[in-house]
Amino acid sequence: MYKAPVEEIAFTLKHVAGLAPALDGGHLGDLTDDLVDAILAEAGRFASEEIAPLGAIGDTQGARFADGAVTMPTGWPALYKAWAEGGWNSLTASPDFGGQGLPHMLHVAALEMWNSGSMAFAIGPTLTIGAIEALTAHGSDHLKNTYLPKMVSGEWMGSMNLTEPHAGSDLGVMKTRAERRGDGTYRLFGQKIFITYGEHDFTDNIVHLVLARLPDAPAGTRGISLFLVPKFLVNEDGSLGPRNDAYCHSIEHKLGIHGSPTCTMIYGDGRFGEEPGAIGWLVGEENRGLACMFTMMNNARLAVGMQGVAIAEAATQKAIAYAKERTQGKAPGWQGSGMSPIIEHPDVARMLLTMKVLTQGARAITYACAHAVDMAHGADARHWAERASLLTPVAKSFATDAGVDVASLGVQVHGGMGFIEETGAARLYRDARIAPIYEGTNGIQAIDLVTRKLPLSEGNHIRGFIAELRDIAAKAAASNMPALGETGERLTGSIADLEAATDWLLAAVSEGRQVEALAGATPYQRLFGLVLTGAYLAKGALADGGDGRNEERAALCRFAAENVIGETAALRERVIGGAASLAAARAVLG
Amino acid sequence: MYKAPVEEIAFTLKHVAGLAPALDGGHLGDLTDDLVDAILAEAGRFASEEIAPLGAIGDTQGARFADGAVTMPTGWPALYKAWAEGGWNSLTASPDFGGQGLPHMLHVAALEMWNSGSMAFAIGPTLTIGAIEALTAHGSDHLKNTYLPKMVSGEWMGSMNLTEPHAGSDLGVMKTRAERRGDGTYRLFGQKIFITYGEHDFTDNIVHLVLARLPDAPAGTRGISLFLVPKFLVNEDGSLGPRNDAYCHSIEHKLGIHGSPTCTMIYGDGRFGEEPGAIGWLVGEENRGLACMFTMMNNARLAVGMQGVAIAEAATQKAIAYAKERTQGKAPGWQGSGMSPIIEHPDVARMLLTMKVLTQGARAITYACAHAVDMAHGADARHWAERASLLTPVAKSFATDAGVDVASLGVQVHGGMGFIEETGAARLYRDARIAPIYEGTNGIQAIDLVTRKLPLSEGNHIRGFIAELRDIAAKAAASNMPALGETGERLTGSIADLEAATDWLLAAVSEGRQVEALAGATPYQRLFGLVLTGAYLAKGALADGGDGRNEERAALCRFAAENVIGETAALRERVIGGAASLAAARAVLG
Repeated sequence: MYKAPVEEIAFTLKHVAGLAPALDGGHLGDLTDDLVDAILAEAGRFASEEIAPLGAIGDTQGARFADGAVTMPTGWPALYKAWAEGGWNSLTASPDFGGQGLPHMLHVAALEMWNSGSMAFAIGPTLTIGAIEALTAHGSDHLKNTYLPKMVSGEWMGSMNLTEPHAGSDLGVMKTRAERRGDGTYRLFGQKIFITYGEHDFTDNIVHLVLARLPDAPAGTRGISLFLVPKFLVNEDGSLGPRNDAYCHSIEHKLGIHGSPTCTMIYGDGRFGEEPGAIGWLVGEENRGLACMFTMMNNARLAVGMQGVAIAEAATQKAIAYAKERTQGKAPGWQGSGMSPIIEHPDVARMLLTMKVLTQGARAITYACAHAVDMAHGADARHWAERASLLTPVAKSFATDAGVDVASLGVQVHGGMGFIEETGAARLYRDARIAPIYEGTNGIQAIDLVTRKLPLSEGNHIRGFIAELRDIAAKAAASNMPALGETGERLTGSIADLEAATDWLLAAVSEGRQVEALAGATPYQRLFGLVLTGAYLAKGALADGGDGRNEERAALCRFAAENVIGETAALRERVIGGAASLAAARAVLG
Repeated sequence: MYKAPVEEIAFTLKHVAGLAPALDGGHLGDLTDDLVDAILAEAGRFASEEIAPLGAIGDTQGARFADGAVTMPTGWPALYKAWAEGGWNSLTASPDFGGQGLPHMLHVAALEMWNSGSMAFAIGPTLTIGAIEALTAHGSDHLKNTYLPKMVSGEWMGSMNLTEPHAGSDLGVMKTRAERRGDGTYRLFGQKIFITYGEHDFTDNIVHLVLARLPDAPAGTRGISLFLVPKFLVNEDGSLGPRNDAYCHSIEHKLGIHGSPTCTMIYGDGRFGEEPGAIGWLVGEENRGLACMFTMMNNARLAVGMQGVAIAEAATQKAIAYAKERTQGKAPGWQGSGMSPIIEHPDVARMLLTMKVLTQGARAITYACAHAVDMAHGADARHWAERASLLTPVAKSFATDAGVDVASLGVQVHGGMGFIEETGAARLYRDARIAPIYEGTNGIQAIDLVTRKLPLSEGNHIRGFIAELRDIAAKAAASNMPALGETGERLTGSIADLEAATDWLLAAVSEGRQVEALAGATPYQRLFGLVLTGAYLAKGALADGGDGRNEERAALCRFAAENVIGETAALRERVIGGAASLAAARAVLG
C-alpha cells in the first residue's frame, strides 16, 4: 500500500525547488519551516490512510450513471467530506473567502500525495480549485460572494467545461452559444464532452464554468466568453433554488480513472426550467473567456503534471515492495539460501532505479515550476513568471510521460502478476495514460514550449536558465564526492546538447521556419526534461539537507547521469537535423 | 477496422527476411511464390474479415467462468471452427498427421495477421500448435497416433502447463508431482497457474502438456518431466472416455486479452475419477521434460514476438486512419480551408512514422528469425540454428516492447478519444502489455541473449552477423538514392555501437564478470533491435521488390536512421560503462 514519501517531498521542496531560500528570504509571509512540515505530514497521512485504501474500489466499481445522476464509488462521498473538512480545499484559496492563502508549492506537494492515493479521486477537487482560481481572478463581486465561500469550504464543487466533439485542442471552433437576456444573465445552449466531475453525489450543488460564444462574437478563440452556470440556482439567502437547465447526459467508459465521472453535459435543451436555456452569469468580460481560462490553465497543467509524479511514485513503491518479496532464480553473487529476491537481479534493479530517477526528476521539475509560480507574486515578478511559463510545458509533459513509462515498468517488474488486475500495478498503467493527453496533449505542450516559451525576453530567459544549469554541473564536476561518478562530465555534455538545440530552435522560430521548429518540438521537450532531471538530482546530492543522505542521493544521481539521461545527444540531433527526414517521410503515411 | 497488410508482409518475407532466395534456391521443397501469395492473401482475409470484427466483443464480454466451465465470447466458438476448418491449424504440422508441412515463415506471417485481428483469440491456437510441435518431436508413437490427428485438424486443442505460484521464470522449484503406476501411466497432483486456454468451449477435449516432478527426481530443472494429461481420457477407438481428474479452478481478471481464459488448473485433487490423481502419459524421457519444452520454447517466444508486431500494426493502422479523419487547428503550411487533419501537424506525423518504423523493424526481425528456423532444417543447419537462437530473444523482446510503445503512441494520437474504450486504441494498449512478460520476460530474454547466444561458436556467429549488417550499411552509403539521406553514415555508426558493445559483453561473459554482463543485458538487447531495424529497413529500400515502392521505403528508412535509432550511442555507453553506477545505486532501493 502507498505510503506518502513525506521526507523526500519536503527535501525536494526545500533544497532542490527553492522553498528553503524562499522561506529564509521572507518571500512567503509568515510561513515557517515547521508549519510546512506539519502540513506535509498531515496531507501525507490523509493520502496514505484515507484515500489510498479506497483507490481500488473506485476503480472496480467506478462512477455509475443512471437517470441523469452519478453515484460515486462506495465510501467516496464520505472521503470527500473528510477531505473538505480537513481544510484541504482551501489551502491556496484567498483568505477573503475562507482560504488559507498558502503557497502553491505546498498545494502541488499535497496534490502529488492525494493523486498517488487515487488519481480518480484527486482530479475532482483539483478542478474545483481551478474553478475557484478563475472565479477569484475574474468574477464579479456578486458572483464571488455568492459562490466562493461555499466552493472554498468544499460544500459545493466546480467543473470546467471547454471541450466539444469538434473542439478539443482547438477551442476556436466551439459551438455552444450564449444569449444575452438584458437582466445581466445569459442563456446557454450546447453540448460539452469530457467534463470531469460534471455530475456526482459529493455535493448538493455543482458550479460549472462554461465556455460559450455570443451571437455577435468574432470568429475563433477571440469570440469565446466564460460563464458560471450552477446546477441549482442560488437564492438571495444562499439557499438552493430551482434546478438549472443543465444536466449530465451520460458518462464515458474509460481505460482508467474509473472513479472519475467523465460527463457529456447538455446545456439548455429544455429538460429543466420553464423555458429552454441554462441560466448563466458572465465571468470576466465578453469575448475574453479564453484569457480567463488561461490564467488558470498553467496551474491546471502543472496539476496534471503532479498526477504523473503521483502515479510514478505509487508504481515505484509497489514495484520495489514486490521485488523485495518475490523470490525467483539465483542472482549472480547471491549468497543467501534458496532463491534470491528478484530485486537482486541486475535487470530488475535497473528497472527500479530508472523508475526512481524518472519519478524524482519529474517531482523536482514540477516543484520548481510551482516555486516559480509562488515567486511570481513578489519581487522579480517578471523573471519568475517567465520561469513558471517556461517550466509549465516541460513539467506537464515530462511528468506525465514519466507516469506512463514508470507504470509500465512497474507492471513489468511484477511479471505475470502485473497483468492481474487485483495486484494494482495494472490500474496505475491504465490511470496514467490520460495524463499525457488532457489539459493540452504533450504535443501541444511542446508547441507551446518551442514557439511561445523559448522566445520569452528574446530568448534571454532560457539562456539564463541554461547558465544556472551549467553552474550545477560545474559544482558536481568540482565536488569531492566520488559517489557522483561521472555526473559532472555527463551533465555538462547533456547541457551542451540542450544549449545547441535551444539555439537552433530560437533561430528557427525567429526566422519563421515554423515547420522545422515544430518537427523538433517533442524531442526538444524530452531533452529539456532529461537535462533537468540530471541537474536537479545533482543539486539535491550537493545540497545540505542535514539528513545525512547525500551519498544515497549522489548514487541515484550518478545512475541517472550514466544510465538514464544519455539520450540527450540523439535528441539534439533529432531537433537540429530531424525535420528533413520527417517531411520527406510524410508521404509514406498516405 | 484492421486490414491485413498482405503486400507489405509478402515483401518483407521475400525481400528482407530471405524467403525469395530460399524459394529460388529450392530450400523450401515445391513451395512456389504464387502459393505463398495465395496463402498470405487468404490468411489476411480471414484475419480482417472473420477475426477482427469479433475482437471487441471478446474484450468487453471476455471469457466467463462458472462451475468449472469457461464460456467463450459470443461468436468465438464458431470463429474457431471456421479457422480450424480453413486448415490454419495444420499449416506447419507434419503431413504424417494431416499437416501441410509448410515453412515457419508462412506460419509467423499468418500469426501476425490473426493476432492483429484479436490477440486474445490467436493465442489459443498458437499454444495448440506449440503442443503439436512438442508432441511430434518427443511423443511416443502411441501418443502421437492417438492425439496428433485430432490436434492437427483442430478438433481438440492443447495447453501448456508450466507456471506455479512460486515457479515462474524459475521452473526448477516447481512442486507438481507425478507418480508412476507401473502400467505405463502416471498420476499427477498439483496446481498450475496462468494456464492460457486451460479450459474453454471451443473443443470437446483439451490436451494438457504438464511439467511435473517424479518422486525420485533430482532437484532443480534436471528433475522435471513432461506429461500429456487429457481433459477426457481417450478410448481405444478414439472416442472420448471418462473425465480425467484435471479441471479449471478459476480464471484471472486481467488487464487485457480478456477473451483468452487464463486458468488456474488443479490436477489430482479427486474431484473426478475413482481415485485422486490426474492420469498422464510421459512425453519424452523421465527428467528430460524441460529439454522437451525447450525444443518448442524458441518457437513460442517467436510467436509472442508476433503478437508484438500484430498489436503494433493494428495500432498504427488505427492511428493513421484517425489522424486523417480528425481535424483540429491549422498545421503550418496547411492550404486547405478550415481545420487541418491532425496528420498534417509535424508532431502527429512524427508519432505515426515512429510507429511505422518500430512496426516494420519488429516485423523484419521476427520474420528473419522464422527464416532461420526454416533454414535450420537444410544445409548449413548449424549456422541457421545459431542464427535462429541468436535472433529469438531479440525478436521476442524488441517486438513486444514495440507493441507496448506503439500502442501507447496510438492512444496518444487519438487524444481524449484514445482513453475511451469504445475507440479500441485502449484495448490494444491493454492487450500489448502481457507480451513483454510471458514466455520469458524480456529481462530473461536479455540474459539469454548475452550469456548463451552471444557466445555461440565462440562469438563468431554474432561477429559474422555484424559483418552482414555492415555490408547492408555500406550498400546504403554507396547507393545513389538521395531518399536515403544519411542512412549509410548513421547506420554505420550504430553498427559500430553494436560491435563495441558486443565485444565488451563477450569479454565480460568469457571472463566470468557475470554481474557486469547482466547489468548491460537489457540496454544491449535494445541496441541490437534498433540496429536491426535500421539495417532491415535499408535492406528493404535497396531491394528489388518490383513494386516501385523503393523511394517510399527509403524515406521511411531515412526517418528511422535520422529520427529513431540514434539512441544506440547512449545504449552502448550504458552496456560498457553502466554497471558500476547500477551496482552503487542498488543501496538506494533499501
